[in-house]
Amino acid sequence: MKRLGIIGADGRMGRAVEALAEGRYAVAARITLANPDYETLADCDAVIDFSAGPALIQSLPHLRGGVPLVSGTTGLSDAEEAAITVASQHVPILKSGNFSLGIAVLSQLAQQTARILGAGWDVEILEMHHRHKVDAPSGTALMLGEAVAKGRAVSLSDKAVHERGGQREEGEIGYAVLRGGGVYGMHEVRIVSESEMITLGHQALNRDVFADGALAAADWLGGKTPGLYSMRDLIEI
Amino acid sequence: MKRLGIIGADGRMGRAVEALAEGRYAVAARITLANPDYETLADCDAVIDFSAGPALIQSLPHLRGGVPLVSGTTGLSDAEEAAITVASQHVPILKSGNFSLGIAVLSQLAQQTARILGAGWDVEILEMHHRHKVDAPSGTALMLGEAVAKGRAVSLSDKAVHERGGQREEGEIGYAVLRGGGVYGMHEVRIVSESEMITLGHQALNRDVFADGALAAADWLGGKTPGLYSMRDLIEI
Amino acid sequence: MKRLGIIGADGRMGRAVEALAEGRYAVAARITLANPDYETLADCDAVIDFSAGPALIQSLPHLRGGVPLVSGTTGLSDAEEAAITVASQHVPILKSGNFSLGIAVLSQLAQQTARILGAGWDVEILEMHHRHKVDAPSGTALMLGEAVAKGRAVSLSDKAVHERGGQREEGEIGYAVLRGGGVYGMHEVRIVSESEMITLGHQALNRDVFADGALAAADWLGGKTPGLYSMRDLIEI
Amino acid sequence: MKRLGIIGADGRMGRAVEALAEGRYAVAARITLANPDYETLADCDAVIDFSAGPALIQSLPHLRGGVPLVSGTTGLSDAEEAAITVASQHVPILKSGNFSLGIAVLSQLAQQTARILGAGWDVEILEMHHRHKVDAPSGTALMLGEAVAKGRAVSLSDKAVHERGGQREEGEIGYAVLRGGGVYGMHEVRIVSESEMITLGHQALNRDVFADGALAAADWLGGKTPGLYSMRDLIEI
Repeated sequence: MKRLGIIGADGRMGRAVEALAEGRYAVAARITLANPDYETLADCDAVIDFSAGPALIQSLPHLRGGVPLVSGTTGLSDAEEAAITVASQHVPILKSGNFSLGIAVLSQLAQQTARILGAGWDVEILEMHHRHKVDAPSGTALMLGEAVAKGRAVSLSDKAVHERGGQREEGEIGYAVLRGGGVYGMHEVRIVSESEMITLGHQALNRDVFADGALAAADWLGGKTPGLYSMRDLIEI
Repeated sequence: MKRLGIIGADGRMGRAVEALAEGRYAVAARITLANPDYETLADCDAVIDFSAGPALIQSLPHLRGGVPLVSGTTGLSDAEEAAITVASQHVPILKSGNFSLGIAVLSQLAQQTARILGAGWDVEILEMHHRHKVDAPSGTALMLGEAVAKGRAVSLSDKAVHERGGQREEGEIGYAVLRGGGVYGMHEVRIVSESEMITLGHQALNRDVFADGALAAADWLGGKTPGLYSMRDLIEI
Repeated sequence: MKRLGIIGADGRMGRAVEALAEGRYAVAARITLANPDYETLADCDAVIDFSAGPALIQSLPHLRGGVPLVSGTTGLSDAEEAAITVASQHVPILKSGNFSLGIAVLSQLAQQTARILGAGWDVEILEMHHRHKVDAPSGTALMLGEAVAKGRAVSLSDKAVHERGGQREEGEIGYAVLRGGGVYGMHEVRIVSESEMITLGHQALNRDVFADGALAAADWLGGKTPGLYSMRDLIEI
Repeated sequence: MKRLGIIGADGRMGRAVEALAEGRYAVAARITLANPDYETLADCDAVIDFSAGPALIQSLPHLRGGVPLVSGTTGLSDAEEAAITVASQHVPILKSGNFSLGIAVLSQLAQQTARILGAGWDVEILEMHHRHKVDAPSGTALMLGEAVAKGRAVSLSDKAVHERGGQREEGEIGYAVLRGGGVYGMHEVRIVSESEMITLGHQALNRDVFADGALAAADWLGGKTPGLYSMRDLIEI
């Protein structure tokens, strides 16, 4: 069986990856703040990271050339981002803030639809998450807005409207946010004309969706040439 | 056939009422700004008003005692409201900002559900309307929030959150607003715990919903004793 | 801490109840086919059953009078049902095929709405479950249909339509079934007129919903007089 | 202003086309069974047909080469289809059973998604229409199923399941049909894995959607070379 290294092995995502890896990978390295045993990574065939930045950066020198690194760590400093870019000269690295395969597909579909139909159709983005989520809108909702903006060749920051005050203006990309209970994550892009509405929706059914996607990304990344990859590369439309 | 008077007969709603009344009522009075022929109202068996305030107030003295008045005029001044209250001593009057029978039912269901489940379940209210709508949230969404607040014996203005900033606090009633294309009107009340979500939704399928409801209200109001009524009285749960 | 007995302790639901009971109940009896130690039930303050029928029936003589029994076992024979009815003369027993509090509320709302609006509004019931579910429609969808039929004072078996062939007839209660992936359970009752649609929806967000509801039912049942109860009794509209 | 011919001018769709054409086209020919004045078509710059087959076939010889014909007539015989194919050697003809631009986009997105994600994700197709619709599933729902089947390189007739009996098998394309009230048309393609669900939805907001799309098709078709076209050609992904 192939050997997997997990950076941030004691976090919620790290443990979810280990649980889902069973039967597919033998976990050969578990890097945590309490167990910073970075050299065990050298024996791994694939590495998945859901740590905070420092453990990830400390890990980089111990990765063998060609061993894929999948990283879900977000909120890195510019210096940390630069270190990853340097490492990607020798290691295939896939970074993502959202490992859902469905969201990667949805983002691609939203971009296409926005491009085909143009700004004469209104776009609104709706998301709902559990009551404990702190930021709003979700990073994924912003990513979907970026996809729509790219499809229209405009800038999201110019067009996003986060609280609806007066009347809608053409070209706006509206956001609506709901929070409640234990909802893992729901996203909808609504694209509306005077006479019809298209809805592109996604729902995470359970917590496995992200660990599942990180493992799928690790499988896909094996054997790729060094460089920086994204979830979009997995779906190759 | 019974005779119907329409105040605001040349507005969008007045014309819709006339179109749907065909075969059920003969339209015997059409009050407009250009045709302020208030005394024609005295011959009617029922009166429906979708005017601005002044035409409504001018009409009140011409209503025969006992002839039902259904009014959808909103944004009245305190003096105008007082005049209607006085008139209701002699005339059965049903006032509503929304003549949808479905919304009246939904509002009742939202109040009950909020009462039964309590503030441990989170409530979020979502609405979507066409791109030309100026106010947000819709009056109907606010009415649904009032129903939830009443079910919990709290005040909506204390609990309503119109833009989600940080983390949700217990007891909040969140609002989310979407605008786009030709959507007549969609409302959803989502009531969520850690492990389940109830959704109470309503959609207007076409413009007839309000004129339809105003006519149903006029039918129901015939023969009632003088007083002030609401759409809630029609559904008598 | 109060002592809980679990019949069918090694099944999926039995284990979920044990996990969620932590900190609220000490599990003092775990009845399984391999461990038919029924007399341990005599020491319990509450008993929850998710077994097959035989273990439940064998357990009945060992329940102390007044100790509540919550049972989620379905598909019992007539003789087994009769044994439970007899036991309910000494023990408060709550039986349900679905322990979701949200579904209990939804069922009540569907019945009310069907009663208020009458058969002039069309009712359709939609459900979606995971790909492994064998029966269709779900027991919960049938229960919602029974609630609608009761609200209209008709019989579900007379009115239910399971595959849409020709044109809809007034008064029909239509069913639509979807199966796929890992969906825990979604139900929707759509109530539609020519100009508006009400949707009463429910979604189970995770597997805890049923174990959670069984524990809430056990809490509620403590101290009640002997008799047969249902989830509807918990919500007392 | 350009001159428009309408075949089937007295039908519901023909009248809707005439109403929406106002200000964009002068209606120069109105072909009906009572007014089979085919030679007036020779003066038109574009022709839109929502007739039954015979009026369409009689019209063909009167179309000038290069003048676009948009036809929404369905249920043609093989001989009638052959006549259209022959005519398309001289005339650009766009035939469609559904002129919604949104449905054309959705169909394309469904095909792509099915291709990318493969048969390991389950596909279910849901549609809802008004209470008077006779056929089920809708032609549009079947078209969406064809798109999914094409994306997977399988045959819809092999994979479609119209009434859910036992357990789902991999690769099935399930259909669910709802009928009620005045719903113009709602379609959803749900694509589900063990841990996430993508929903591709469409809703017609009013009756204009098809007349609107037929006029958009006529605009687009002007100046194209003779041949047979479809709505898919309008969206050129």
